[in-house]
Amino acid sequence: MSESKTGACVFAQSGGPTAVINASAYGVIKTALDAPEITGVYGAANGIVGILNYKLYDMRLEDPYELSLLPNTPSSELGSCRYKLKNAEESDADYVKILEVFKKYDVRFFFYNGGNDSMDTCAKISRYFAAVGYDCRVLGIPKTIDNDLCGTDHSPGYGSAAKYIATSVAELYKDNCVYDTGSVAIIETMGRHAGWLAGAAALAGLSGAAPDLVYLPETPFDMDRFIWDVKTVYGEKKKCLVAVSEGVRYKDGGFVSEAKVSASDGFMHAQLGGLAAILADAVKRKTGAKVRAIELSTLQRCGAHLASKRDIDEAFAVGEFAVRAAIGGESGKMVALRRVPGTDYVCECVTQPLETAANNEKTVPREWINAAGNNITQEFIDYALPLIQGEPERVTEQGLPRFARLKKLPPRIFRIKSLP
Amino acid sequence: MSESKTGACVFAQSGGPTAVINASAYGVIKTALDAPEITGVYGAANGIVGILNYKLYDMRLEDPYELSLLPNTPSSELGSCRYKLKNAEESDADYVKILEVFKKYDVRFFFYNGGNDSMDTCAKISRYFAAVGYDCRVLGIPKTIDNDLCGTDHSPGYGSAAKYIATSVAELYKDNCVYDTGSVAIIETMGRHAGWLAGAAALAGLSGAAPDLVYLPETPFDMDRFIWDVKTVYGEKKKCLVAVSEGVRYKDGGFVSEAKVSASDGFMHAQLGGLAAILADAVKRKTGAKVRAIELSTLQRCGAHLASKRDIDEAFAVGEFAVRAAIGGESGKMVALRRVPGTDYVCECVTQPLETAANNEKTVPREWINAAGNNITQEFIDYALPLIQGEPERVTEQGLPRFARLKKLPPRIFRIKSLP
Repeated sequence: MSESKTGACVFAQSGGPTAVINASAYGVIKTALDAPEITGVYGAANGIVGILNYKLYDMRLEDPYELSLLPNTPSSELGSCRYKLKNAEESDADYVKILEVFKKYDVRFFFYNGGNDSMDTCAKISRYFAAVGYDCRVLGIPKTIDNDLCGTDHSPGYGSAAKYIATSVAELYKDNCVYDTGSVAIIETMGRHAGWLAGAAALAGLSGAAPDLVYLPETPFDMDRFIWDVKTVYGEKKKCLVAVSEGVRYKDGGFVSEAKVSASDGFMHAQLGGLAAILADAVKRKTGAKVRAIELSTLQRCGAHLASKRDIDEAFAVGEFAVRAAIGGESGKMVALRRVPGTDYVCECVTQPLETAANNEKTVPREWINAAGNNITQEFIDYALPLIQGEPERVTEQGLPRFARLKKLPPRIFRIKSLP
Repeated sequence: MSESKTGACVFAQSGGPTAVINASAYGVIKTALDAPEITGVYGAANGIVGILNYKLYDMRLEDPYELSLLPNTPSSELGSCRYKLKNAEESDADYVKILEVFKKYDVRFFFYNGGNDSMDTCAKISRYFAAVGYDCRVLGIPKTIDNDLCGTDHSPGYGSAAKYIATSVAELYKDNCVYDTGSVAIIETMGRHAGWLAGAAALAGLSGAAPDLVYLPETPFDMDRFIWDVKTVYGEKKKCLVAVSEGVRYKDGGFVSEAKVSASDGFMHAQLGGLAAILADAVKRKTGAKVRAIELSTLQRCGAHLASKRDIDEAFAVGEFAVRAAIGGESGKMVALRRVPGTDYVCECVTQPLETAANNEKTVPREWINAAGNNITQEFIDYALPLIQGEPERVTEQGLPRFARLKKLPPRIFRIKSLP
């Protein structure tokens, strides 16, 4: 495919949403709409599943003002999926369908916004197109609040989740100090395999409200040691604020969140609350302290009202860059962020082989966690702090967020063809 | 006491914190510092308990810039308490101590910021001072996120909690729609006896993200009916968003949150999660749907980053008004907000007898809840929507909230006296 080749593009969102994934959508859509090389701009409903179901939305039919509100809109506006493509050698049914849809709309550019599974999907589609000789440039666009994508300094979405967590922890710290009685609060963050989100809780220290203890999945969790840690802090201050990743595990690899709880009747049974509730119960029983369990829930991935401006800007930039890179001839790559060495924070967009990210996980380096495994080090702060900077101009209406309202109409050419 | 009498003032905060209780503190402190009639401005640590423990902070020694950050600072900056004074006829030990402290610092103005219990405390102290002939003007200042205070159109603190809830629900609505698979989310708000906070979830409808079902403690909860409601919505949309007050109760008066859970082993045992977890478990078992339990936790009372500007302004105003009213000769009163009838929202400060609020609870009128008891009506929206208006200028530093940093020094005269 020559660099001057034209055609339509399909954009899709995949995996768990972030507060800024729609900023990447806007980056792709706006850049694609403005690009003379791109003849049609289609969004797929619910990621790759929308392509398989022939469910595309024509972005050319959307009101530009509504599109401009995408960065103000959390969750994945086009819908997401958790669909794993089989290897084409195993079964090519899905690939044949994708090819059929792409040919129908003359799709020559495909942008897939997601995490490591999505990069795997991109890689498979890219290889299939190469094998069957279909000329289409495939670019992966990174996102994930977990920040576990390899090959990129950080993932768009992480900065806003980190800002949500750090701000909430700072406020909860204040709340936990309000009475003159003893009080322990255990705050659970997401992050099943990597501790980037739990570590972000420590950024609250910049507000003078640092959590006393922070537990990441990168170091093995020991319940006795945990109780001892809490007791020590509580003994000194009569207060203790703990941040803990949902993914902490015992030395044997078992998730602490999957612990069975022994009730007073002696029977063992799973309980309903999450990890924070389990730990709060343990602390209560061992210390008698008043303990509150706080799960930051899905708000940490959809709390767009606390998005970091830098994160929004970078999310837009990776989308924009993907389109420009594809037009420039790149394919089979993932857009990544590279932090330029130096004292001031500067990040630039680059491309990486899809395989760098596909199915790998980037965890917090052990040396960014203290020796005791109950807090993070200054290196972590230095890494994460730049990512939460800046307050975006939030669009509100009647005191509430004004989300984008898309029409989500089927592609124009399809509609014309289907008229009687 | 003549209107021109001068003396010091003590200000204290009581009960559960709100996102804007420190705006009222700033209203009192700033106005008192500026008033020639007020010779000393002391904050009590942890409410009435600080007075009983001789723990006062001299507000004249604080940096004015730091004080100006109080409206940007959640939780009760001076500390709070849940201390209930005995009737003076029963035991006057506490009253004698309060009188001693007040005489020592020539305190002639007392401002107590709290909910209905705090108004009761004010009333008792006011009566005691009258009985012993101590000249001191006592004013109650309203606050509570629960909005259950009688005698005032609404309580400062409610508007910001409502804005936090409505915004979070709007974002969670988006999150709940992200996949093409079925999904139910159950969001638990605070409000043990009144449904004002749960009802505020419905304001998310203004963002196009209304919860499908809203349950308040004002109507009896029926588990079968609840499951039927969820099933009906879920059957139509494959999605269902529920907002529920922690205080919902069965017809017999028992809190649903205190339900015993029957595990698969047939034994009954209490479980660790809160109400949302209990309801999520019930829905899961009855529908097989994917259900997420989300407890908005204490963030709804300390989420200052989402405070309503109107709420901040009104919280400041009731503090300022209390000082002016006391200087003007009023005592034994609570400051209240009166909504001026008319199409535009206008509220003014008035005073009310302390007894109007003391130990009473204002619940949501039954006619503001729909007949089925599973949502609120337009009257509720019309009442609550004006209270969440306006985005305050948030002070941040390095991307995080910049809270007030008070020195909290003991009163100057006390320090001089205690020098060797």
